[in-house]
Amino acid sequence: MKIQPECVPCLLKRIIFEAEQSTKDQKLRVKTVQNACKLLAELYDPNECSATIATKVHKIAYETLGDNDPYKDLKYASNKIAHSLVPRVEHLINCSDDRLRIAMLCSIIGNLMDFGISGASDNPENLSETFEENFAEDLRYDETDETKKILAKSKRVIIFTDNCGEIVFDRILCKEIKKFNPDVFLTVVVKGEPIISDATLEDIEELEFEEVTDEILSTGCFAIGLDFEKLPSMLKKALNRADLIICKGMANYEAFSETDYKPVAYLLRTKCTAIANSMGLPLNINAVKLYK
Amino acid sequence: MKIQPECVPCLLKRIIFEAEQSTKDQKLRVKTVQNACKLLAELYDPNECSATIATKVHKIAYETLGDNDPYKDLKYASNKIAHSLVPRVEHLINCSDDRLRIAMLCSIIGNLMDFGISGASDNPENLSETFEENFAEDLRYDETDETKKILAKSKRVIIFTDNCGEIVFDRILCKEIKKFNPDVFLTVVVKGEPIISDATLEDIEELEFEEVTDEILSTGCFAIGLDFEKLPSMLKKALNRADLIICKGMANYEAFSETDYKPVAYLLRTKCTAIANSMGLPLNINAVKLYK
Repeated sequence: MKIQPECVPCLLKRIIFEAEQSTKDQKLRVKTVQNACKLLAELYDPNECSATIATKVHKIAYETLGDNDPYKDLKYASNKIAHSLVPRVEHLINCSDDRLRIAMLCSIIGNLMDFGISGASDNPENLSETFEENFAEDLRYDETDETKKILAKSKRVIIFTDNCGEIVFDRILCKEIKKFNPDVFLTVVVKGEPIISDATLEDIEELEFEEVTDEILSTGCFAIGLDFEKLPSMLKKALNRADLIICKGMANYEAFSETDYKPVAYLLRTKCTAIANSMGLPLNINAVKLYK
Repeated sequence: MKIQPECVPCLLKRIIFEAEQSTKDQKLRVKTVQNACKLLAELYDPNECSATIATKVHKIAYETLGDNDPYKDLKYASNKIAHSLVPRVEHLINCSDDRLRIAMLCSIIGNLMDFGISGASDNPENLSETFEENFAEDLRYDETDETKKILAKSKRVIIFTDNCGEIVFDRILCKEIKKFNPDVFLTVVVKGEPIISDATLEDIEELEFEEVTDEILSTGCFAIGLDFEKLPSMLKKALNRADLIICKGMANYEAFSETDYKPVAYLLRTKCTAIANSMGLPLNINAVKLYK
């Protein structure tokens, strides 16, 4: 997705949020906002990918703050609150005659644990309060049937994860994918370095993803979504061989929508107008949308 | 009020809005956002008044756009929709046993006609839909009694207006002030140059303010709220002689709260957290707050 005008204030809002998470030093917070504004003035160009610009702006913010993981505490809290909801998610899946669809929906609800932007949760505790409400909302755009058809015939599937917290439900989704098609070789991808609240190898260490997937890879670098110019060779190979790419969250849409990789199933909540418009979806809905 | 971190994205949001109002030329829109970001990087300083910084950022936006009044159409539409509500406002005042309080409330409801920021109306038409709802909300912070006590003893009162549309209800407020205290010398102040959707001398030309006030002055220059360093001598004199200053809207609070002028009655809707927090008020309420 190309950067939209509204991405500029939204990105700054997130930079302010992360500066406040990172330090109580007012001067450092101010410097961070100034540096982000300065860089945005240079980079803002409607022909550029929003994720690419966001990566660079977060990079300068992290450097200014001297902090390589301002969301550390929030990420930990997110995983914890998500863990407490696992029995509920498993119960909902067990009660359903379409296990995979419900696993996808729950994994999307986890996508609400995203911080410092509008349309998302302000703190992890909100999730347990809003989980039932969001579950009742269901998928308002639903291409799970089409996705399942492709999945049934797939040999290799790769899933790009997004935030911590959400990742706990992604693990359940992985389990259900394997249950749906036991022959599939499933690769799960997390971030190569800490960036916003996204899950890294370190963040998923205790989640035992190896029990539910065949391969765990990382994006290899600091990037919102992923940086296709810096893909590790293993990941490039896995991507090229995948019969189905599953992308969680908005940032992966921002990055993948600039490429020709197909088929991609996006599992996300449309938390901003830029992405909702780009995908032709209403704002603030749970969606599974397939691009093939 | 000193600039708060959240003012930065909010201001940029408004700059984007006004660029879109002003031109369909994408390059010009982009250049406007870039220039605003660049200037914000230089100016953002928590020791500076938010209105002062906003003035400079809007200035560079207007210059980049080559447009001295991007809100012209919206201002016209706002006055028109407000006019259609005048009979309703007069009826509400006539039915009340506290005419001045209701006139203040209606004038604050007009303050919702403010564009390109959160917590305000997106288009003038919304006002007639939301008027009744907002009237029912009433004043959730109400120092009208204290304000009336001062007004009853005042010889000179000065009222600083805010947006177009709203200005139509301010005229009714002026009439009620004169009815409440016929001996008062009432000065109304509008903007010296077009800035956002604020009313200028030109915008109020047909409103016949001379019928309900004793003096009409302008702030004399391009400024969010007003620029105390560039006050015309007539305005400075009027301000110094005033027994009561009435300020409509948030920008006047941002500017006046940095001065020692007193007593000031702020009549506004708290449309953002920065101002709500600064005034110790809840967000999104109608308020009359007196500083004496």
